[in-house]
Parts: sequence; structure tokens; C-alpha cells
Amino acid sequence: MLGSTYRLIEQYMLMCMNDSAHDRDHVYRVLYTALDIADTENGVDADVLISACLLHDIGRREQFENPELDHAEAGAEKAFRFLTGNGFPEDFAAEVRECIRSHRYRSEAPPESIEAKILFDADKIDVSGAIGIARTLMYSGQTSRPLYLLLSDGTVSDGTNDRSPSFLREYKYKLENVYSRFYTKRGFEIAKQRQKTAAEFYNSIFHEADFSYRSGADKLGRYINGKK
Amino acid sequence: MLGSTYRLIEQYMLMCMNDSAHDRDHVYRVLYTALDIADTENGVDADVLISACLLHDIGRREQFENPELDHAEAGAEKAFRFLTGNGFPEDFAAEVRECIRSHRYRSEAPPESIEAKILFDADKIDVSGAIGIARTLMYSGQTSRPLYLLLSDGTVSDGTNDRSPSFLREYKYKLENVYSRFYTKRGFEIAKQRQKTAAEFYNSIFHEADFSYRSGADKLGRYINGKK
Repeated sequence: MLGSTYRLIEQYMLMCMNDSAHDRDHVYRVLYTALDIADTENGVDADVLISACLLHDIGRREQFENPELDHAEAGAEKAFRFLTGNGFPEDFAAEVRECIRSHRYRSEAPPESIEAKILFDADKIDVSGAIGIARTLMYSGQTSRPLYLLLSDGTVSDGTNDRSPSFLREYKYKLENVYSRFYTKRGFEIAKQRQKTAAEFYNSIFHEADFSYRSGADKLGRYINGKK
Repeated sequence: MLGSTYRLIEQYMLMCMNDSAHDRDHVYRVLYTALDIADTENGVDADVLISACLLHDIGRREQFENPELDHAEAGAEKAFRFLTGNGFPEDFAAEVRECIRSHRYRSEAPPESIEAKILFDADKIDVSGAIGIARTLMYSGQTSRPLYLLLSDGTVSDGTNDRSPSFLREYKYKLENVYSRFYTKRGFEIAKQRQKTAAEFYNSIFHEADFSYRSGADKLGRYINGKK
């Protein structure tokens, strides 16, 4: 890939992701991790992979504005239009579109090409470990979601049966399960190394919060007369 | 304290902290942890302590609206006016005011009464460990601050010399140092147990991010011709 081509695609990505620094940082981590994985696989088209990594989340704004849209679908179409409109061959643009379309964890269209598999894995790695925890917590702050919910007895819920959003629920629903589905050996290896950090952090959050509430209500009751 | 008195003060706190669930949750954790510490100290006036814990952050909005204000000062005065205006004795309201005034980590007025010392420690405990990390990350998300900054060579800064806000800087400046100043034995003991979790998480974030960037730029360079 020419340096000028890289910068053209990068500029378009930056234009689409003007909302926050951590979204842009995510894109670079995914790109760099994907290139690390690419070194361990055969027959990777680096131009397709680099373009797909840079553009994989450009549909985020569309999904944010209309939550019924899937950012992978929206981003795939946007990337295709951008690439063909800028003189890239149609079959190249179609390969990039396919990678972006199938990168979503919840997607029903699994990745098929090696470039799509690498993008999928690199994106999932950024949901694993401490970075995955940090990104989820920053998103909780941004959207005013609580760290945890309380059960009816006043103790802290571990997230398993939460009926509304909380960080602990997001961990149980998504972060905890991200280690089970990888398409490359190297991708699985990197994520696996980070699994313990995430699990230990979840346990610490839960136990630290639980510690306060568990004895708190009783102790407060002792100090308050005529409670209720 | 009468149940009705507790509920009156609690209602006022909730009214002042209408911005987010995690601010309210913080208040309850501080209250419960303070009562845990109070069990290990002598001569604690539980009514002063409970009132001060509930009201310690009610000046947050004033500081948010005018960053030159200190939320501890603003909250202390607000609490005093609220309590005297609701028929509490003036010396009681003054004791609560003193606790709130001295609870801030950066404050130059150290806590003097046992209730003030307990509030200070309980509030600091909520900056320690996994909860402290989580609260800081949620605040980073809320205020659109990045997780880390890059050094001029394109690698990830560990936060030590960052000149603008980042989560790693906040860890190096505040979270890492919170374990050195406690006024009660029990408070220090609880925080100390949580220190390793926070340090390990910081290290994981840094190493995971550093891993991508360190090899990423070189690998990208190999794939791009005519870079620059």
C-alpha cells in the first residue's frame, strides 16, 4: 500500500470518528494487533486488512443516531462507497466491505476470508483483558450507566440477572464470554493471556462493593431508631 | 438518630446529587464503610458521622459549575445551612460542616475530629482498589478523557509525564498515592488489601496498550511503501 493511500483512508476514518479519542485509539490498537496476527497467517492481503481495520467502526455514528441500525452493516456500506468513489477497484472495495460486515460479535454472518477472521479476532482482543474492562467502564460513564445494581435485599447484584444495564451485567453478558470464539491461533493466544486479569478485576469490583453493602445496612440499622 | 431524621438528610443528599447513579452509590459505600471503621474507634458521634457521610459530596455541582470552587468548602456551607434551617442544633451542624470541609484529599485543612478522620478514610477507600479504578475510568468516559497518551516516538506513555489528562496520568498522580495517608487503623487496613488489585490493573492496561503500539508502527511501516 502506498503511504498516500494509507493516509487517505486514515483521514476518512478520523473524519467519521470525531466523537472521542478512545474510539480512535481503539482503531489503532485493532490495526496493530491485526498486523501482529497477520504475521502468523498465510495468504493475507495486507491492503484489504489495513483498510478494513481502519474503517471497521465508521458506522458507529449511524448506529448511535439510529440504534436499530447495525454499525457493521452501515460501516461496510459506507466503506464500499468511500473506496469505489476514490478510485479503488470494486472487487477490493467488496473484500473490505465483507470484512467490516462480519466483524461484529453478535453478527450472524461469521467472517470467512482470512482478512475478515483477523479483523474479527483483533477487534475481540480489544474487548478482552484490562483494556476491555477499561473501555466498558468508560462507556458506562459516558452513558451514565451504574457500576452495579442492588438486589431486593439491599446487597450488590453480581450482574447475572440484572434487568437493566450495569457494568457487572455487561461483564457477565459480554466480556466474560469473549474468549470462546476466535478464528486464529495467535488471536486466541493473545486474548487468553488477558483473561485472568479481567476475571480478577470483576471479582474485586464485586467483592469490594459487596463488602460495604453487606454489613452496611445492618450497621446503619443499629444506629437508627425507628427505621422504616 | 431517628429514622425520620435519616430520611430527611438522605432526601436532601439525593436532591443535590441528581446527576448520576454512581455518585449516589459512592455516598452509600462511604457511609457503610465509615460505619465499619466507626466500630473500631472510641467516642464516635454516630449522628455527626452519618450526616457528614450522606452530605459530604453535595457541593459537587457547585464545583462542576465553577471549577474554582472547592466542593468540600461549598458542600460544608450547604450542609450547615440545610441542617440549621431544619432545626438541628448549631453546634451539631458545625461539627458536620467541619467533617465535610476536611474530607478532601487535596485539602490543606486536615481532619481533626474522629468523625472527620473516619469520613476522610472512608472516602479515600473508595478511591482505592478496583472501585477506585472503575470510578476514575467512568469519569474519564464522562469527560471524554483518553485512556493514555502517546510519546513522541509513537509508544504509549505510562502517565508519569503526561501534560494533559489521561487515565494513566490520574493513576500516577492520585490513585497510586492514596495508600499513604490514613487516619484510622481499620481504614488503612481496608485500603491496603486493595492496593495490589489497583497496581496490577494499571500494569495490565499499560502493557496491553504498549504491546500493540510497540510492534505496530514497525509492522505498519513494512506494509506501507513511501511512508511519510
